[in-house]
Amino acid sequence: MTNKRVAIIGAGPSGLAQLRAFEAAKKQGLEVPEVVCFEKQSNWGGMWNYSWRTGVGKYGEPVHGSMYKYLWSNGPKECLEFSDYSFDEHFQKPISSYPPRPVLFDYIQGRIKKSNVRDYIRFNTTVRWVNFDEETQKFKIILDNLKIDKTYSEEFDYLVVASGHFSTPNMPYFEGIDQFPGQVIHAHDFRGADPYKNLDLLIIGSSYSAEDIGVQCHKHGAKSVTLSYRSNPIGVNWPDGIKEVPLLKYFDGDVAHFKDGTSQRFDAVIMCTGYQHKFPFLPDEMRLKTKNNLYPDHLYKGVFFNDLPQLIYLGMQDQYYTFNMFDAQAWVARDFMMDRYQIPAKGARRLDINKWLIENEKLKSSFDHIDFQTNYIKDLLALSDYPDFNVDKVAVMFKEWIKDKDDNILTYRDKTFQSVVTGTMAETHHTEWMDELDDSKERYLYQEQAEDMLEDTLEEERL
Amino acid sequence: MTNKRVAIIGAGPSGLAQLRAFEAAKKQGLEVPEVVCFEKQSNWGGMWNYSWRTGVGKYGEPVHGSMYKYLWSNGPKECLEFSDYSFDEHFQKPISSYPPRPVLFDYIQGRIKKSNVRDYIRFNTTVRWVNFDEETQKFKIILDNLKIDKTYSEEFDYLVVASGHFSTPNMPYFEGIDQFPGQVIHAHDFRGADPYKNLDLLIIGSSYSAEDIGVQCHKHGAKSVTLSYRSNPIGVNWPDGIKEVPLLKYFDGDVAHFKDGTSQRFDAVIMCTGYQHKFPFLPDEMRLKTKNNLYPDHLYKGVFFNDLPQLIYLGMQDQYYTFNMFDAQAWVARDFMMDRYQIPAKGARRLDINKWLIENEKLKSSFDHIDFQTNYIKDLLALSDYPDFNVDKVAVMFKEWIKDKDDNILTYRDKTFQSVVTGTMAETHHTEWMDELDDSKERYLYQEQAEDMLEDTLEEERL
Repeated sequence: MTNKRVAIIGAGPSGLAQLRAFEAAKKQGLEVPEVVCFEKQSNWGGMWNYSWRTGVGKYGEPVHGSMYKYLWSNGPKECLEFSDYSFDEHFQKPISSYPPRPVLFDYIQGRIKKSNVRDYIRFNTTVRWVNFDEETQKFKIILDNLKIDKTYSEEFDYLVVASGHFSTPNMPYFEGIDQFPGQVIHAHDFRGADPYKNLDLLIIGSSYSAEDIGVQCHKHGAKSVTLSYRSNPIGVNWPDGIKEVPLLKYFDGDVAHFKDGTSQRFDAVIMCTGYQHKFPFLPDEMRLKTKNNLYPDHLYKGVFFNDLPQLIYLGMQDQYYTFNMFDAQAWVARDFMMDRYQIPAKGARRLDINKWLIENEKLKSSFDHIDFQTNYIKDLLALSDYPDFNVDKVAVMFKEWIKDKDDNILTYRDKTFQSVVTGTMAETHHTEWMDELDDSKERYLYQEQAEDMLEDTLEEERL
Repeated sequence: MTNKRVAIIGAGPSGLAQLRAFEAAKKQGLEVPEVVCFEKQSNWGGMWNYSWRTGVGKYGEPVHGSMYKYLWSNGPKECLEFSDYSFDEHFQKPISSYPPRPVLFDYIQGRIKKSNVRDYIRFNTTVRWVNFDEETQKFKIILDNLKIDKTYSEEFDYLVVASGHFSTPNMPYFEGIDQFPGQVIHAHDFRGADPYKNLDLLIIGSSYSAEDIGVQCHKHGAKSVTLSYRSNPIGVNWPDGIKEVPLLKYFDGDVAHFKDGTSQRFDAVIMCTGYQHKFPFLPDEMRLKTKNNLYPDHLYKGVFFNDLPQLIYLGMQDQYYTFNMFDAQAWVARDFMMDRYQIPAKGARRLDINKWLIENEKLKSSFDHIDFQTNYIKDLLALSDYPDFNVDKVAVMFKEWIKDKDDNILTYRDKTFQSVVTGTMAETHHTEWMDELDDSKERYLYQEQAEDMLEDTLEEERL
C-alpha cells in the first residue's frame, strides 16, 4: 500500500474532508498513501472562498464560487457540524444557528489548520485531462500550473473528484431574452444585493438560490422581487414586496409575459435555474452524468463509480446534509483506498445502488427527502470510524427548519438549535437577521460586547 | 498529400478564412486535404455570433463572444473588406462605412454560404486536449461533443488554431474592489449600455473596449462616464459627460480613489483591461505565450509556430487589419499545408521573426503601428494567390480614421471611405450615428426608403 498515490480534485469542503480523513488515520499511527490535492483557486474552501470575480478568474478559468456578499447560512449550522470538530471547539463560545459565510469559512479552515495538510495541496493548478490505463490500472492526469503556465502529468492509483456541482450554471433560453435591455445574470454571478436597490427584479427559479437571492434583494432594498416557478412555487408566506408567479413564457422588450397571462416590466433578471454536474477533464465514460439528485445513479454508497471504483466522487448528491455528509463519505473512501474497507463485486454494488434509486423514486415531501438522506448518512457512518452523531436529531432539526421557513422566511434565521455534537444550545444573535446588514466575522463575533458598551454609555448620557 | 488531415479550431473569421482558402483551391481543381473545423458554439462567426449569455454557455463552457447590443464597427469597413468578396457583391448596393454588428456578421456569412463548408464544421464541439506524437508526426486531438456529452479523439497532420484572443478576460485586482457595492464586470461580459442609464460609470482601461463602451454608455444615457488609464489617456476630444482620469488606486466602499489624489463615487465598474491569449487545450510547449502585440514572438510569417510549424496560429496579432489579414494568413497557411509553399529551416525562420520583432520594438506612434502591419500584410500577399489589394491606400484610411476619432469621437462613424476592392464610395448612413439607437440589419439596410416614404406622407399632410 505504501507506494499508492491518491489524487484529489478540489480543496473545498469535500476535498478537505478527504485530506482530514487521511490525517486522522495518520494520527492513529496508520500508514497512509501519498495524497496530492489539486485546487484551481489560490486558496482552499471551494465555494466558501468568496471571489469578487465573475465569469473567469485571474488565469482565465471559469470562476468556481457562487457565493455573494451578505450570504448567511440558509440552514441551521447544527445540521452540518463536523462530529470530530465542534463549533464550541472552534469558537470557544456559543454562536447563533445561522452564521454568515465568513464565519462558516473560518470554521471549515479551523479544523484543517490544525495539521499540515496545506502542504498536500497544489494551488492554482487545474486538471486538464485524465486517462485511465486499463493495463497499469493507473490514472494519468494532465495538470496545468496556471501561475507559471506550465503543463505536466502524473500518475495516480486513485482519483477523488471533489470539484463540486454548484459552479457550472444551467441557463435556459427564453424567447426575447436576448433583447431584454437590463442585466441578465445567473445566480452563479450574483455577488450582492446592492445593485438591485430600487429595481424591479425578476428571479427565475424556485429552489434555494431563488429563495435566498430574492429575500436578500428584498432585505437590501429592491423595489419588488418576482419569482417565476416552473412546476411548483416555493409557497412560503412571502412578505409584501416578494411574490411568486408561474413560469416566464417570453420577453417583449423589458416586459415579461408569464404562463398565467399576466405580464410585468422588469429592470433586471437573475436566473436561479440550477447547476450542471460538469467534469470537462474526464473522458465521458468516467463522467458522472446526472441531474441534481439525492442519489445519483452509478455511485456505490454514493461515492464509488460503479464502472471503476478507484474513481471516487464526493458530495455529488443534492444536499440537506453537507459538511458532515462529505466527512462520512470521505472516511469510507479513505478506508477503501487504504484497503480497510472492501466493496462487493460490481453486480452486488449495482443491486445496492438500485435499492436506493427505487427508494428515491418514492419520495414525495421534503420530509421524505430528509429521511432518505438521513438513512444514507446512517448507512455511511456504519462503515467507518468517523465519530457517530445523532443523525435522527439532525433530521428533526431539518424538519423544524422547513417549518420555520414556511412560517416566516424573513425571521427563520433568528431561531436557535442545539448541537448534537456538544449539546450546546445556540446563542440568539445580537441583531435580528432582517436588521443585520453587516456579514463580517468581526461584527458577528465581537459586536455584541461593543454594542452593550455603547448602549450603557448612551443610557448613562440619557440619565 | 491526399490522405493529409487538417484540424481547425474555431469557426470565427480566422477559421472561416482557412475554410474559404481551401475552397478556393478546390475550385481551381486542386486536390485539398481533408479539413475538419471544431467550433464550440452552435453557429459560426466567432466573436460576431452575438450571445446574450455571459460567463458560461448552454453547455457550461466559457462564453466566447465579447460583443454587445448597439456595437457598430469601430473602424471603416473599407479597411477590412475581403479582396475576393466585396461589400458590393454581398449587399448589391453601397452602404455606409461603419455598419453595426449584424450587418458585418451578414457579410462574413455571405461568402461562406456560397459553398458547402458548413459541412466541414462540427459545431458544439470543444477541444479538450492535444498531443503531438513526435514519431508519427501527428496531432492526437481529444474532442468533446457538448450536445451529446461524448468525448472522442482523432488524428491530424496539421493543426490550425483559430480560436481568437479576445475571449479570455484579463482582470486585475484593485484594493477594495471586493467590497465595491455595485456591479463589477469585465468588458467581455458587457451586453449593452441600457443597464447603465442614469448611473455614474467607472471604466478602467484606455484601449478600444474602454473607448467604445464609454461612448456607447454615454450615447445611451449614462449619467457620467469616467475612464481611468494606466499609462496614457486615450486623449481624444471627449464630450461633456465623459472624462479621463489617471489609474485607480483603491476603492473605499463605492468611492474610487485615483493616482492624482482625486476621488469619486460610482454606481458600477466595467473593466476594459484586455484579454489573455489562452490555449487551455494545448501542452504549454505548444502554447503561444504572448501579450497582445503586433508581432507575437515564435510565429514565422505571423502564423507558423517555429518549434513545430505544422502548428499554425491565425489572427493572433493585435489588429488594425482584421478580415483581410486573416485571409492573407490563411491562404499562406493553406499553401504550406498543400505543399505549394515551402518554409525555410528553423534557424532562418528565427532570423526572419527577429527582424520583425526588432522593427516592432522601434514603433512609437499609432501611425508607425499601421505602417508596420501594412508591411506585414504586403509580405503575406506576396506569398500566395490571395487577390492583391491596395494595402497602402488602406493604411491611409486607417490614419484618417485615427484623425477622425481625435477630432470627434461621437461623429467619426458618420464619415465615408472608398473601397480598394471595387472603388465604390460608401453611402452616408440615413441617420447620424449619435441619433441611431437601433442596430438591426433591417433598420440599417431598409429604413431609408421607409423613412423617405413616411416623410413624404407627413409633408403632404402638412400641405
